[in-house]
Amino acid sequence: ADMYHAADYYFVNQHPAFAFFTGVPFGMTATELNNWYYHGGGMQRHHELGEIFGLVSFLAGNTGTQAGGWFRKEIKGPEDFNGLKFRMPGLGGKALGYMGASVQNLPGAEVYQALASGAIDGTEWIGPWADEKAGFQEITKFYYTAGFHEPAAGLSVAVNKEVFDSLSPSQQAAIEVAAGHANVWNLSQYLMNNGAALERLKAAGVKVLKFPDSVWDAFGEASQKVYDEFMGDDLFASIFKDYRASMKASSGWIRDSIEEYRRQRDRVLGV
Amino acid sequence: ADMYHAADYYFVNQHPAFAFFTGVPFGMTATELNNWYYHGGGMQRHHELGEIFGLVSFLAGNTGTQAGGWFRKEIKGPEDFNGLKFRMPGLGGKALGYMGASVQNLPGAEVYQALASGAIDGTEWIGPWADEKAGFQEITKFYYTAGFHEPAAGLSVAVNKEVFDSLSPSQQAAIEVAAGHANVWNLSQYLMNNGAALERLKAAGVKVLKFPDSVWDAFGEASQKVYDEFMGDDLFASIFKDYRASMKASSGWIRDSIEEYRRQRDRVLGV
Repeated sequence: ADMYHAADYYFVNQHPAFAFFTGVPFGMTATELNNWYYHGGGMQRHHELGEIFGLVSFLAGNTGTQAGGWFRKEIKGPEDFNGLKFRMPGLGGKALGYMGASVQNLPGAEVYQALASGAIDGTEWIGPWADEKAGFQEITKFYYTAGFHEPAAGLSVAVNKEVFDSLSPSQQAAIEVAAGHANVWNLSQYLMNNGAALERLKAAGVKVLKFPDSVWDAFGEASQKVYDEFMGDDLFASIFKDYRASMKASSGWIRDSIEEYRRQRDRVLGV
Repeated sequence: ADMYHAADYYFVNQHPAFAFFTGVPFGMTATELNNWYYHGGGMQRHHELGEIFGLVSFLAGNTGTQAGGWFRKEIKGPEDFNGLKFRMPGLGGKALGYMGASVQNLPGAEVYQALASGAIDGTEWIGPWADEKAGFQEITKFYYTAGFHEPAAGLSVAVNKEVFDSLSPSQQAAIEVAAGHANVWNLSQYLMNNGAALERLKAAGVKVLKFPDSVWDAFGEASQKVYDEFMGDDLFASIFKDYRASMKASSGWIRDSIEEYRRQRDRVLGV
């Protein structure tokens, strides 16, 4: 094929480092990912990884931070994941496995039915806008806003490298620039629609909750075990190191400026 | 001219509503602005405003939330702004005026010298990356991270409408798409570089601070007085209404997902 448009973590069996360009447990938010991608060397690492498979890859979308998901019963501590039949693909699912969950990798089309029949106890999906369309509020009432598993979910376009190299510089630039526009356009599409959908879910009787600190601590510990599994791969370890360094370098200012501002604004305006 | 690239709030004397497409006191962050712009009708309002002046306008950059600025002495309460000679252009400066500040609208090139000589007591500028280049850390030691005056500062490209209308649809799309790419590219440029610059400023002895709640309350009250001044203009009032409604619709999910996640991640990882 000449080109694909997908979430790169579908290809972790080809190489685990593809996960960094979609989302990884305890990883970057969409804004932090863009900081790394466009100005911290992330795009170059994406190209380096793609080259192994004859691809030239660009970020071209993002869902934002995905929801913690739908549960048939409230989660009060990490022990509630023990034996829980939960649908979560990817590295997040591996982490839940370390917490004792029975992780079910069902295809998307089967999830609603499995949850309705009680074959699974819960599922993560995307966020309010997509989750409402999937109809999970008809079956379960406990919905967790922030999850640990996909703090951002980047989408990529990748072009066959031979095809890309045969293009003119302006054609190549058109692909790169269109991907960047799609990136901001798609992220804002999710974020704009999630807010209104969340209000509708609340109105439909969904209990919107946050995981307690003890659960986050357990998520963190389990996620580290997942990273440890892959650290034997030099390219994975090297990209992880860059990724974490960039995350630390750009997160402090976001917290002290954007988030401090928003906190004060929302407090003063009563938003 | 066929085209400009600028911050649209330079044109508030042409129409006060231009301020919404750069930044307004107690307004949207960059992410919220993008949500409104691409999926909440903001771009259409930008075009509607531009049309009055024969322009077709697109957001094409953002500095992120601007810093509260540099002060020769610490700010402990709103009364500390009384009589303070402070440089802040735009609607933010008008708000500081309501708090008793003597607002100085110096051209950028004169600010460093005015601060060094004591002609002014402080200044806002952009953020750590640009502020460090300007050298304010050589003269003042109190630096406030989040300000109320420019929670995001969008940059625009605008094309002469006659020229734009003479272009082919694919040429028009190329301008729109390139502007969108520049928007995400430039925001991440500021955010990536601000983090490292902030660390260098700290290492150089700058005291990095946050305004206390009482000051934010006063900023909020003063900002509302500024809005009240312009509400007699129907287009301003109508865009303000859309803008605030979109801000409320998209801010809740950002707080409950992205910010809740980041708070927990930073707590667990000790970032």
